[in-house]
Amino acid sequence: MKTLIVHAHPEPRSLNGSLTDLAVSTLTDAGHEVRVSDLYAMNWKAAVDAADYGPHASTPLRPVRDSGRALDAGALTPDVRAEQEKLLWADTVIFQFPLWWYAMPAILKGWVDRVFTYHFAYGVGEHTDTRYGERYGEGTLAGRRALLSVTVGGPEPHYTARGINGPIDDLLFPIQHGILFYPGLEVLPPFVLFGTDRITEREYPEVAKAWEARLRTLETTEPIAFRRQNFGDYAIPSLHLREGLERAGRSGFGLHVRD
Amino acid sequence: MKTLIVHAHPEPRSLNGSLTDLAVSTLTDAGHEVRVSDLYAMNWKAAVDAADYGPHASTPLRPVRDSGRALDAGALTPDVRAEQEKLLWADTVIFQFPLWWYAMPAILKGWVDRVFTYHFAYGVGEHTDTRYGERYGEGTLAGRRALLSVTVGGPEPHYTARGINGPIDDLLFPIQHGILFYPGLEVLPPFVLFGTDRITEREYPEVAKAWEARLRTLETTEPIAFRRQNFGDYAIPSLHLREGLERAGRSGFGLHVRD
Repeated sequence: MKTLIVHAHPEPRSLNGSLTDLAVSTLTDAGHEVRVSDLYAMNWKAAVDAADYGPHASTPLRPVRDSGRALDAGALTPDVRAEQEKLLWADTVIFQFPLWWYAMPAILKGWVDRVFTYHFAYGVGEHTDTRYGERYGEGTLAGRRALLSVTVGGPEPHYTARGINGPIDDLLFPIQHGILFYPGLEVLPPFVLFGTDRITEREYPEVAKAWEARLRTLETTEPIAFRRQNFGDYAIPSLHLREGLERAGRSGFGLHVRD
Repeated sequence: MKTLIVHAHPEPRSLNGSLTDLAVSTLTDAGHEVRVSDLYAMNWKAAVDAADYGPHASTPLRPVRDSGRALDAGALTPDVRAEQEKLLWADTVIFQFPLWWYAMPAILKGWVDRVFTYHFAYGVGEHTDTRYGERYGEGTLAGRRALLSVTVGGPEPHYTARGINGPIDDLLFPIQHGILFYPGLEVLPPFVLFGTDRITEREYPEVAKAWEARLRTLETTEPIAFRRQNFGDYAIPSLHLREGLERAGRSGFGLHVRD
C-alpha cells in the first residue's frame, strides 16, 4: 500500500499525534510506503483566496471557475499541487483529526477547500440532462480508499441513534459521502474513539491495540456501501433515489447506503 | 434589534457580498443596529493553536482546558475577545456563507473553533451524573437568535428527502443544532439559495426581495423547535431521547426537533 496520512492537530504529543505516529510505524513495519501531511507542521493556509489561483484569479474572484482554470494550466500554488500529487500517488488516505464542533478542525476543512479544486475533485466528466458528472463513486480519485480516524471528546451514548448529538454516522456523512465518496474514494468504516476528553495514559494501550488492528486489516476491510450515482439507483437529472430501493423505514442520509 | 453578521466570502462583489450589503442596509433602514465581522477583510486566523492562549497555553497544549483558563483569566487574544463581545452585544446573529463541500468555508469554521471556547460556548454549568451542563437551549448565548444565510451551488432537488446530497436540513444540522443551539442560540429556519453556480444578474432582484422579506420579519419568525436538553425529553446521563416522544417513523437528526 501507499498511504497518505492527513493529520490535523496542533499538539504532536496529543492522542491524535500518537495515533498518527502509530499508523506510520505500523504501516512501515508491514512494508508499506507512508507519507504524512501534518497540516499544523506545514503551517497549512486554510482560507481559499485569490492568491490560490495566481494569474487565473479573475476580477471579481470566482473560486469555482478560477480554480479549474488554474488547475488546467498547472498554475495552482505549489502547496496545493503537492497535496494533489500525494493523493494521486496514494492508494489509501487516512485522515487523523479531532471532531471539533461536530466537524473537521478548520485547518483540515481548509485543506479540502483548497486541494479539492474544480476539475480535480468536482466538475469532472460530462454534465448534461442525462449525465451529471463523474462523482459519487467515480471521479479523479476512483480506485483509492479513505479512512477517517477521529477522536471525539464526548461519550459514545450521546452519539447513538437516540443520542442528543445525533448518530456519529450521520455527523460524518457530509465528510464521508460529500467530501470523500464524491471524487471517487471508497470509504472504509471510520475508526472513532469516544470520550477522549477523559482518556488516561493507562487506557492508551487498549486504544493502540484497536488502531493497530484496523491498520493491519486495511486492505481487506469492506468499504461503506454508498450508492454510486451513475449506475441506476438515481434518476437523472433530479438525482433522486428511485423509489423502492431501500429497506422500509430508511430515511435521511441512510438512504444513500445500500442495505 | 442588535444584529451581528458574520460574513465569510473572499470576494466582496459576490452574491454573498451582495446579500450581506443588503442585510446591512435593510436592517439599518429599519432602525436596527448592525455590526459585521467580515472574516476575509479581517484576515481572520482560522487555526486553533498555542498562540491563542498566551501564558495559559500548557505544554503539551490542551485546547479544551487551556482555552477555558485563558477565557477565565481574560487572556484570550484580542481578536477572539472582540468576537465574543460582539456575540454578547447582539440579540441576533446572521451567518452569511457559501456551502463548500457540504459545510462552512474553513475561515468560518475557524471562527467557531477559536471563538467558541471552553467556559464560553461549552463546559458551561454543572456536569454531574444528574446534570450535563447548560447546553442545547441553555448556555452563554441563551435568549439570542441565529440565522444561516447560505448559498448552494447545486440544484435544490439534489438536496431534498431523496436527493443524492442528502436533505439540506440534515446537512445543516451539525451547524444549526451542534454549533448554534448548543451554546443557547435559538435558530431561525435558514435562508438557503440553491443553484447559485448558475444564477444570473437578471435573477438577483427576486433573490434580493426574498432576503429582504426574511430580514424584515426576523423578530416575528418562529425558531426551529429543537428539543432542549434539560427539560425532560432526554434521560441523563445517557442523553438519550426518551422513547415515545416522536411521531412514528422519525429517526436520525429529525428526532431532535419537536413535532
